[in-house]
Amino acid sequence: MAADIDVTLQGGRTTHVLFVDTIRELSSRLSDYGQRVLWVFDVNSARLFTSLPENNVILPSGEKFKSWSSIEKILSAALDAHLGRDSLFIGFGGGVVCDMTAFAASVFMRGCGLVLVPTTLLCMVDASIGGKSAIDFHGGKNLVGTFYPARDVLISPSCLRTLPESEYMSGLGEVIKHAFLSSAHDLYDFLVDNRKDVLSRDRQALSTMLSLSLQVKASYIERDPEERKGIRQALNLGHTFAHALESIEDFRVKHGTAVAWGLSRAMHCGQDAGVTDSALVEAADSLLTMYGYDIARRIERGRWLDFQSAVAKDKKNISGRVRFVLLEDWGRPVLKDLPAQLVQRNVIAPATVR
Amino acid sequence: MAADIDVTLQGGRTTHVLFVDTIRELSSRLSDYGQRVLWVFDVNSARLFTSLPENNVILPSGEKFKSWSSIEKILSAALDAHLGRDSLFIGFGGGVVCDMTAFAASVFMRGCGLVLVPTTLLCMVDASIGGKSAIDFHGGKNLVGTFYPARDVLISPSCLRTLPESEYMSGLGEVIKHAFLSSAHDLYDFLVDNRKDVLSRDRQALSTMLSLSLQVKASYIERDPEERKGIRQALNLGHTFAHALESIEDFRVKHGTAVAWGLSRAMHCGQDAGVTDSALVEAADSLLTMYGYDIARRIERGRWLDFQSAVAKDKKNISGRVRFVLLEDWGRPVLKDLPAQLVQRNVIAPATVR
Repeated sequence: MAADIDVTLQGGRTTHVLFVDTIRELSSRLSDYGQRVLWVFDVNSARLFTSLPENNVILPSGEKFKSWSSIEKILSAALDAHLGRDSLFIGFGGGVVCDMTAFAASVFMRGCGLVLVPTTLLCMVDASIGGKSAIDFHGGKNLVGTFYPARDVLISPSCLRTLPESEYMSGLGEVIKHAFLSSAHDLYDFLVDNRKDVLSRDRQALSTMLSLSLQVKASYIERDPEERKGIRQALNLGHTFAHALESIEDFRVKHGTAVAWGLSRAMHCGQDAGVTDSALVEAADSLLTMYGYDIARRIERGRWLDFQSAVAKDKKNISGRVRFVLLEDWGRPVLKDLPAQLVQRNVIAPATVR
Repeated sequence: MAADIDVTLQGGRTTHVLFVDTIRELSSRLSDYGQRVLWVFDVNSARLFTSLPENNVILPSGEKFKSWSSIEKILSAALDAHLGRDSLFIGFGGGVVCDMTAFAASVFMRGCGLVLVPTTLLCMVDASIGGKSAIDFHGGKNLVGTFYPARDVLISPSCLRTLPESEYMSGLGEVIKHAFLSSAHDLYDFLVDNRKDVLSRDRQALSTMLSLSLQVKASYIERDPEERKGIRQALNLGHTFAHALESIEDFRVKHGTAVAWGLSRAMHCGQDAGVTDSALVEAADSLLTMYGYDIARRIERGRWLDFQSAVAKDKKNISGRVRFVLLEDWGRPVLKDLPAQLVQRNVIAPATVR
């Protein structure tokens, strides 16, 4: 099993990332948290338990329930269970459950304890680490939230054995993004050398991959916990493209799959802008292709305005400017404005001759 | 005018408390914040402006609107004005407006800028400093919120000239509480020596009193910004009694007035428990009486169970125990459980012989 990782964030708050080998070990760890606990599931993650712990809330599943009304359910359940600031919320599920449990914990009596147990690959490598809590608001993704790192994040690769293939591949998109954000090539090399074990979800391979991926993410968030220095934004590599794609496709594309596509687009735009060299672009395209991502995908010409307006709405726009994350080299991200025409020619299908 | 005060809270975040002399100077300072600003008023504070600044929200006035629906109004207005994380919310009003503006700012895109302009004495000496944001939830006061210190707090004693008498006396209750939380007697001596100027709201007297009072509050919150060490709780001196009184009187008693009564009850309970010496109890009773507070008030015998249950619901109860703030000496608070009978004989009217 991988070694535990500590991630220290704002105000010295530390998240302990603990790897647990089996579901049995996970249960035993969880029971150590005692009685003053509220469990938050969604209908999917609740099914992983044969009998649910006493104080629990089961939320409906899906992005459209990532709203204040779900937060109210969590807070009401905590009050009904007579919990106070000294108690603990345990979020057990994917990104939506973890983001909302974290938000609820951050505002319940101005902050109670928080433990996250991510059950999807995407949540293990992304949402559960770094303290971003959120709900959607007025159609905007994650527009409302807090920075509130979990005390512990319990990661059990065993949870991934039963994850649907499309969910697993979505998570891998974020892992591949991390491979390019590290100046060490170790995660990239590992993914190239262990394709079969990674895709068959071999336990040892998962464990190594999770650990390498989390170390990359941790290195960015520790230097810029509240995303105020332009460092943490690097983790959004590929995301401006991805969010716009998700938006115009009404979220039928999974997030990490959109990120994989967005990563490739960011590389090509970077090359076009004279920022990224061709060897790096080729390394990305080759890894993405090797893992089966559709990097040839383009947006139809007629949807360019929709795409452009989705880009402009992206939360990362500051004072009306949209800044893209590009790569100067392995692990050397830069934030840059890009001319609309440059973006257009890299995401839109070329006009075809009839 | 009093010197400005800096209060440094969690993660090194500093609140600058700026004293401004005239309403004109206040307006000029406020216009320096530029254009990417959302103003939050309630119907009362909005009346202080002849023409309102462009991006504004006007909330209904009163505790019963201290809810998520008001927060949604603020957040929607911010989105309508195309504001982002780099923008600023300015809360202009009493405690309810300031608490809610702070909460909205703390969750808008995971935290935007915050400036508070308290217009009541209670808010100047209490709510605006220390970073506690809040809304009420399921009938419980301030059950949901965050710690999010304002960048600047602009205090203009001129705002207090037109404050209704009952509001002014409510604020003075908290000021008097601060006088006993300081081991230096300076605020106490000032209140004793300047009763007439304080009550007539002489500008120089207000300025000195505000400054002394804020320094006491700052000394507690700087040592325990998130109320986790049992230090900041001292500021709740008198509050467990006050909240229970407010609750059984359906909030017809103003908060600071209830705190003044609660302070006297805490002193007498402390004496009864062998913690507080009689000279200190007399000093409190004498100052409170000098300023016209009804310290002889008692709860009717028939309401004891209601009072007791309101005490038990007080947010400060940890693991089911209610801890009272008592004073061992000037500026030497302790947290203590008190036997129900001891509390009862100090708050309930004695049985009368028919």
